[in-house]
Amino acid sequence: MDRIEVAKIGDGENSLNKNERFVKQITPKSEDFSRWYVEIIRKTEMADYAPMKGMMVIRPYGYAIWENIQQLMDMRIKDAGHENAYFPLFIPESFLRKEMEHLEGFAPEVAWVTHGGQEELEERLAVRPTSEAIIGSMYAKWIQSWRDLPVLINQWANIVRWEKVTRPFLRTTEFLWQEGHTAHETAEQAQEETIRILYLYKDFVEKELAIPVIEGKKSVREKFAGAEETYAIEALMSDGKALQMGTSHNLGQHFSKVFNIRFEDREQNLQYVWQTSWGVSTRLIGALVMSHGDDSGLRLPPQVAPFQVVVVPIALGDWKKDVLPWAEKINLDLRQKGIRVRLDSREEYTPGWKFSEWEMRGVPLRLEIGPRDVKENRCVAVRRDVQKKEILNLDSLVQLVPDLLRDIQTSLFHQALDFQRRNTHWAEDYEEFKETIESKKGFIKAWWCGDTGCEDKIKEETMATVRVIPIRQEEEEKAGRCVYCRKEGRELVYFARAY
Amino acid sequence: MDRIEVAKIGDGENSLNKNERFVKQITPKSEDFSRWYVEIIRKTEMADYAPMKGMMVIRPYGYAIWENIQQLMDMRIKDAGHENAYFPLFIPESFLRKEMEHLEGFAPEVAWVTHGGQEELEERLAVRPTSEAIIGSMYAKWIQSWRDLPVLINQWANIVRWEKVTRPFLRTTEFLWQEGHTAHETAEQAQEETIRILYLYKDFVEKELAIPVIEGKKSVREKFAGAEETYAIEALMSDGKALQMGTSHNLGQHFSKVFNIRFEDREQNLQYVWQTSWGVSTRLIGALVMSHGDDSGLRLPPQVAPFQVVVVPIALGDWKKDVLPWAEKINLDLRQKGIRVRLDSREEYTPGWKFSEWEMRGVPLRLEIGPRDVKENRCVAVRRDVQKKEILNLDSLVQLVPDLLRDIQTSLFHQALDFQRRNTHWAEDYEEFKETIESKKGFIKAWWCGDTGCEDKIKEETMATVRVIPIRQEEEEKAGRCVYCRKEGRELVYFARAY
Repeated sequence: MDRIEVAKIGDGENSLNKNERFVKQITPKSEDFSRWYVEIIRKTEMADYAPMKGMMVIRPYGYAIWENIQQLMDMRIKDAGHENAYFPLFIPESFLRKEMEHLEGFAPEVAWVTHGGQEELEERLAVRPTSEAIIGSMYAKWIQSWRDLPVLINQWANIVRWEKVTRPFLRTTEFLWQEGHTAHETAEQAQEETIRILYLYKDFVEKELAIPVIEGKKSVREKFAGAEETYAIEALMSDGKALQMGTSHNLGQHFSKVFNIRFEDREQNLQYVWQTSWGVSTRLIGALVMSHGDDSGLRLPPQVAPFQVVVVPIALGDWKKDVLPWAEKINLDLRQKGIRVRLDSREEYTPGWKFSEWEMRGVPLRLEIGPRDVKENRCVAVRRDVQKKEILNLDSLVQLVPDLLRDIQTSLFHQALDFQRRNTHWAEDYEEFKETIESKKGFIKAWWCGDTGCEDKIKEETMATVRVIPIRQEEEEKAGRCVYCRKEGRELVYFARAY
Repeated sequence: MDRIEVAKIGDGENSLNKNERFVKQITPKSEDFSRWYVEIIRKTEMADYAPMKGMMVIRPYGYAIWENIQQLMDMRIKDAGHENAYFPLFIPESFLRKEMEHLEGFAPEVAWVTHGGQEELEERLAVRPTSEAIIGSMYAKWIQSWRDLPVLINQWANIVRWEKVTRPFLRTTEFLWQEGHTAHETAEQAQEETIRILYLYKDFVEKELAIPVIEGKKSVREKFAGAEETYAIEALMSDGKALQMGTSHNLGQHFSKVFNIRFEDREQNLQYVWQTSWGVSTRLIGALVMSHGDDSGLRLPPQVAPFQVVVVPIALGDWKKDVLPWAEKINLDLRQKGIRVRLDSREEYTPGWKFSEWEMRGVPLRLEIGPRDVKENRCVAVRRDVQKKEILNLDSLVQLVPDLLRDIQTSLFHQALDFQRRNTHWAEDYEEFKETIESKKGFIKAWWCGDTGCEDKIKEETMATVRVIPIRQEEEEKAGRCVYCRKEGRELVYFARAY
């Protein structure tokens, strides 16, 4: 027999001495979600506050998650035909001014460089809040003919937005992201690209981060400053608030007209190109914490966990001779299978302390091995997602562990999906809407007339905003009346309070 | 027979029509090296000028080289025990002021942020010219005990230095780099790390970029502002000027004392940590151009080339039926072997135009296949490094191509090494020194008393500077007299005019 399930945690030589649970110091999620969030991020050493207001340092444990996200996302972006490039950090103020909606949207958040060395600059430079303007100015040089299209470029970069209220990973003055910028011959092609990327993002977030999302269009109020249409994926965090996980904008010809990005079409007429832009950021790391974390700490999906497996030798008897070599062999065998393993053979900590630490850090699978396990050619596996123990035969370990990791990935997704479904409510009228948002939180599906006035009132009175207008309206139920004004409902939308 | 060498280029169906050589537009290297350099970079679409003075855009072809450099370097840095992290872009002015030598060294080059949104900041923020100050302030929080040491952190980031004279990749207002920052218990450990990284860089540049370097210490005049000692690797570009390729600094306790980075040592005494920092940048891409490029364009080492192989089907007769499927099979077979291949089946260009373009872009190996080749189950391989043709049997292609790529990598290194050796000269006295630097350029090995006065005079009169003081002095010849002042020569050094 390769796997034996153990009924409950706490029996045998590897059991945890409850007094050693240093993670008890974490504020329970139910008590204070915000505090729980920040404590987890700091205690797991994912990030720390920088000495400047609103800025953070991404520490190695957090950055390793970002590297895994980057690698998996970069592969998808390249497979979809895009190439990476790098555009300047600074954008002249006059460039931002060309697209007025864009300028007005970003001006309050721009950090301005005014001096280079000892000299004052003739023109202020914006530290990029997003790169449409600078990239547009380059595309105008590079694109001449329909043969040059499509241009499919992505960049990985740092972004600065002068935010008043900040929170690590979710909203910081500086953050890291990828931003795609494409140019096309026709409006249809730009729209296709916008939607293709929206679904690329959905697939990425659901498969790799194990977070289910709702995809759809943003309302005019929530769309990107300078876009024709903004599409987004939205997820429900475990406190019932929504988080925007990624956006894909159809820019139409807004930027090509002001930056004069023209091409000779197949009929030799000069035309403006049709553009898109899209991005996801280090905010995704915050989403991992808030979607999957529990009172003991992080629960990381194996696909992006810095360590997928931690091996803890139990320091009993002559463990360095009797146990450690076996732990080292497990480490090596799994590593050769391409699994990210950490062998924790530190002597200054007890096994119980280690269990607790790696639990807090969200390592998906812990393998414990003690002298008795060695004798019986087995080890104990503890899954972080369900806190369930199994006995694994050492001979089959390299086959069993990848299966277990796949199970954990799937199980985290299904737990989150189940939560999202249980926390998505219908509201027929505004009374029900208000009551639901107060008592149940989560997503509220309701009909909306499409009027920004109603949207503003709802936000003012309930703090809920239109998160997305689902793309496939026809799949939803039959039309009703606007939840606020009772006029005919044009669209069925998802409302929520959001980060 | 698997490989047949063809005596000279220009015979058979695949030969190039000389009139199609559009790369003739490149200024010959011998005529104007600077112009040749910039033209190559722009025509190969590695980079373009941004609309702001001194800034550039790294286009996909250049960025793909950087991605390959990053991947190979990142692996080495991690294998040496370091982890990646990310620190803020902005550094408060007061932090830079703490280490005065550091401030004075960088102040003339700093871009200052003075406004966030509509508000003027209380304190100016430097856009990082390097990150010792901000990282030091964080290490002071993270390091308490000798158990926390060593701290081995690296970051990949953008850097801004307000340069007056700029040149793409070599010196631009913004560039990309990696910067390692480590903290140690003892002075010896910091020195060991400094040297370990110096040799890691040397190994990387010689093996992956095929550029031989001289490693050694910098003079006081040339050392990093705030370091105890700076070590560097220096290469000779093909115009006879030297280029600093990477630096590794022993920071001693300069930063730990001003940022108060203290730890309790093994005897429970409070001590300041010993630090190092080190970096290489996108400048390495400039070095690739200047080391290996020729009048036809780039010659990229296979290890970092975006495409290692380009496959060009010869459009003769019913080529889409008779040739293209074979070209596609070659493309697929090589790709499955993990080789970066580009199949160029574009119809709007002639084979000759394509040969010329990929030659300019420096693709290490070109495979040409025409209808006659298909019949004889072969293709023609043209090496970019030596412009030599070979006939390859299609059945053995996946075995032969990796061998050829290895040959090309080695051959580029040996060509560059040979150039470096032929251009390294001895100067016994100052007359010989001046004559050599004027007539022959290259490295000049000479004795130096170690006095900054002599160094300044030499620079003033010849534009040559001390590039490195080789680490292993004992391996060099017996002591002589300072090439300038004729006092006793303390050190044998490499002088050169440099970028």
